[in-house]
Amino acid sequence: MELPSQCAMLRIFFGEDDRSADGRPLHEAIVIKARETGMAGATVLRGPLGFGRSSVLHTAKILRLSQDLPIIVEIIDAPEKIDALIPQIKALTRNCLITREKVEVIRYGDED
Amino acid sequence: MELPSQCAMLRIFFGEDDRSADGRPLHEAIVIKARETGMAGATVLRGPLGFGRSSVLHTAKILRLSQDLPIIVEIIDAPEKIDALIPQIKALTRNCLITREKVEVIRYGDED
Amino acid sequence: MELPSQCAMLRIFFGEDDRSADGRPLHEAIVIKARETGMAGATVLRGPLGFGRSSVLHTAKILRLSQDLPIIVEIIDAPEKIDALIPQIKALTRNCLITREKVEVIRYGDED
Repeated sequence: MELPSQCAMLRIFFGEDDRSADGRPLHEAIVIKARETGMAGATVLRGPLGFGRSSVLHTAKILRLSQDLPIIVEIIDAPEKIDALIPQIKALTRNCLITREKVEVIRYGDED
Repeated sequence: MELPSQCAMLRIFFGEDDRSADGRPLHEAIVIKARETGMAGATVLRGPLGFGRSSVLHTAKILRLSQDLPIIVEIIDAPEKIDALIPQIKALTRNCLITREKVEVIRYGDED
Repeated sequence: MELPSQCAMLRIFFGEDDRSADGRPLHEAIVIKARETGMAGATVLRGPLGFGRSSVLHTAKILRLSQDLPIIVEIIDAPEKIDALIPQIKALTRNCLITREKVEVIRYGDED
């Protein structure tokens, strides 16, 4: 598997409590979907504080909402593969932010 | 609240020990400022290792500086809202790196 | 030390178990290389779940691979310094994804 030098990065922002329709943690559902559809890779990041569309302040601190910390899932692949993935990610998610950025791939795997 | 498809992402890099002028953890102060000023969202990420302008190697390892791990705060909104926020973030911070990137918003909240 | 307003961000994706040739955790080796070569900064992020070229699903969950969580190292500097660093990062790493993005530097350190 190779990646072109001009790729796209999809980033999906939501809360740790968010679930897919079948009750699975949303970040797991997204990563599994990315793998099933043959994407080059996916990375989940979890932060200690944040807020999103609901304007709830997610935080790890005691006495605040401790269970819904911010999650970002990053998926990088060829632009057309990312474009094909977007409707599937939209079908999987509801209240989230999805962004797309251009990235240049310098290396993927062992090749130079 | 809606977001245009062409947005900007502000990223602010500093150390976990950094405080705002009123003694609050800087990442909290930035996230609260972002919410007060009506930004679409903010996400804090914390890493296990890093260094910045001071060239101190932040690390979670025992026997090194364990208290000043790297923090990134990400804020995404319309370019003019990000531009209006920048002076306020500058006023809140001192020794940090602030970057700005273009991002395309694919979805924000429930809308398609 | 100053940074130009147009900088580049290098991001290196791999697993927490990856080591440099001398047996050091790869993220440490990369951060130390970045500091030795005078880069403006480096930040390590570690995620709870992900997969990459090997298609192994890295996860923090019990009963799955718990030891090879995804790592991202981000390095930001002037484009020509990033370009000069790339061969050194390639020499240090094998099975990883390396991307490059343009970022605008709004502030670096104390200056306005």
